[in-house]
Amino acid sequence: MPHPTDADFAARVQNSFNRQNAMHLIRATLPVIAQGMTEIHIPHWSGVEQQHGFIHGGVVGMIADSAAGYAAMTLIPASASVLTVEYKLNLLAPAEGEKLIARGQVLRAGRTLMVTKAEVFAIKAEAQTLCALMQQTIMVMSGKAEK
Amino acid sequence: MPHPTDADFAARVQNSFNRQNAMHLIRATLPVIAQGMTEIHIPHWSGVEQQHGFIHGGVVGMIADSAAGYAAMTLIPASASVLTVEYKLNLLAPAEGEKLIARGQVLRAGRTLMVTKAEVFAIKAEAQTLCALMQQTIMVMSGKAEK
Amino acid sequence: MPHPTDADFAARVQNSFNRQNAMHLIRATLPVIAQGMTEIHIPHWSGVEQQHGFIHGGVVGMIADSAAGYAAMTLIPASASVLTVEYKLNLLAPAEGEKLIARGQVLRAGRTLMVTKAEVFAIKAEAQTLCALMQQTIMVMSGKAEK
Amino acid sequence: MPHPTDADFAARVQNSFNRQNAMHLIRATLPVIAQGMTEIHIPHWSGVEQQHGFIHGGVVGMIADSAAGYAAMTLIPASASVLTVEYKLNLLAPAEGEKLIARGQVLRAGRTLMVTKAEVFAIKAEAQTLCALMQQTIMVMSGKAEK
Repeated sequence: MPHPTDADFAARVQNSFNRQNAMHLIRATLPVIAQGMTEIHIPHWSGVEQQHGFIHGGVVGMIADSAAGYAAMTLIPASASVLTVEYKLNLLAPAEGEKLIARGQVLRAGRTLMVTKAEVFAIKAEAQTLCALMQQTIMVMSGKAEK
Repeated sequence: MPHPTDADFAARVQNSFNRQNAMHLIRATLPVIAQGMTEIHIPHWSGVEQQHGFIHGGVVGMIADSAAGYAAMTLIPASASVLTVEYKLNLLAPAEGEKLIARGQVLRAGRTLMVTKAEVFAIKAEAQTLCALMQQTIMVMSGKAEK
Repeated sequence: MPHPTDADFAARVQNSFNRQNAMHLIRATLPVIAQGMTEIHIPHWSGVEQQHGFIHGGVVGMIADSAAGYAAMTLIPASASVLTVEYKLNLLAPAEGEKLIARGQVLRAGRTLMVTKAEVFAIKAEAQTLCALMQQTIMVMSGKAEK
Repeated sequence: MPHPTDADFAARVQNSFNRQNAMHLIRATLPVIAQGMTEIHIPHWSGVEQQHGFIHGGVVGMIADSAAGYAAMTLIPASASVLTVEYKLNLLAPAEGEKLIARGQVLRAGRTLMVTKAEVFAIKAEAQTLCALMQQTIMVMSGKAEK
């Protein structure tokens, strides 16, 4: 690992997530925080729908981007922060179901840049469908802790 | 143009946008609809903020994706619909200011696929900063009108 | 699988590869062809180097794109062909070593579009380093066989 | 501009290009070098063809990536170098014609990261067709001059 371990990474990541109003707005939660991986969940509710009653593709992108960004944040010291440089997202199937799970993972942790991925699954009657796939570049801002 | 012109394209696009709850949730509007171009605007309000008080990057991606998708929809017949296949977004600067403007444009209109771009500008005290740049692929679903 | 199986897919794919002069130019070979997966190999030789003596990033992209495109071609009927719509490639490490292996895989096989990935590994003294990661969209041209 | 001007940028860029064997292999030249922009040209010859006699998509990607990377290199001091972090390329039309022109441009020059674009045009009987469009992220390696 290119960065020293931060024993409190989970609390630090949860804390950052809690201060994101936009995540509350869409009713997202962050129930899984592990080293190099996080999951953001979101229930299907009317406020996040598009015109056909599925969850909006923009909301899918929003939780994919955030899950992978927070996965990166689990691997940096408390004195640093992360920024999304860019991402590429393929939408594979309509986000249809009772809830979405966005699973973000770090694929390559460099000192300055990390490459991550996210998969978004739609859960419907216990079955899961992969509905989006993302590849992302994250920048580590050393010495710039989140306030 | 590979598709026959639809005189009512603006009404059709506005109508589709109006039925997207997720766009209302973030307080987005669609004040500009032209052939091959649309603009989505969003005011800065607390509900769309991230942890530093800027507009959330996920919301930036959401309006970029939608503005370019609706730009594509202006060029198809009433009997067809559009789907986002994928997009790639670079975040260039924090989305800081009173409002955001996402300008979507069609770069290449094929019969089945379109390539589009979106630029997202942050407006602050009359100055504008380019804060995101997107390149997107759209699929035209012929014979599958939006209901 | 959305397409009928073609028992001769390996011969068909090998045949198409053999007719690509550009693959011969860089001394690429296609030693692995399986359903939904192929590998393109390339030796390190002076003709494909960049200015520091590593294999050129453009050559890395070239074999990543082709390996994933041929992985898609293993899943279509003999009466169809494939086209690269777009891809996104992250370069993770210098392509340093005796040879490169680009492994392409189909992640999602739709009727018209497929989503694939490729990983490119540099082999050096029996160790392998992941040097590039690609996510790609492929279009299936039904009824348009390769001549 | 975030970096001090280097009066000799064109010589430095040309020099780097000249040491890339892979560019010679495909018979690419770099006839245009301006601040923030370069052009790579390539003639249509049999060695770069794919199976239908067009220029190989991998070669199109190779010159797009390089033209935009060299555009970034025109804006950095002699004491620094550039690396491609990632790029996303849409292929819009077959690369059919007598030659290809890849035009790379810097869209945003940050201190550590630059965002660039490239357009690749196929020239056929004096007409030009846009055949590829790329959006790219470049990293500036300060204090690491090219040898």
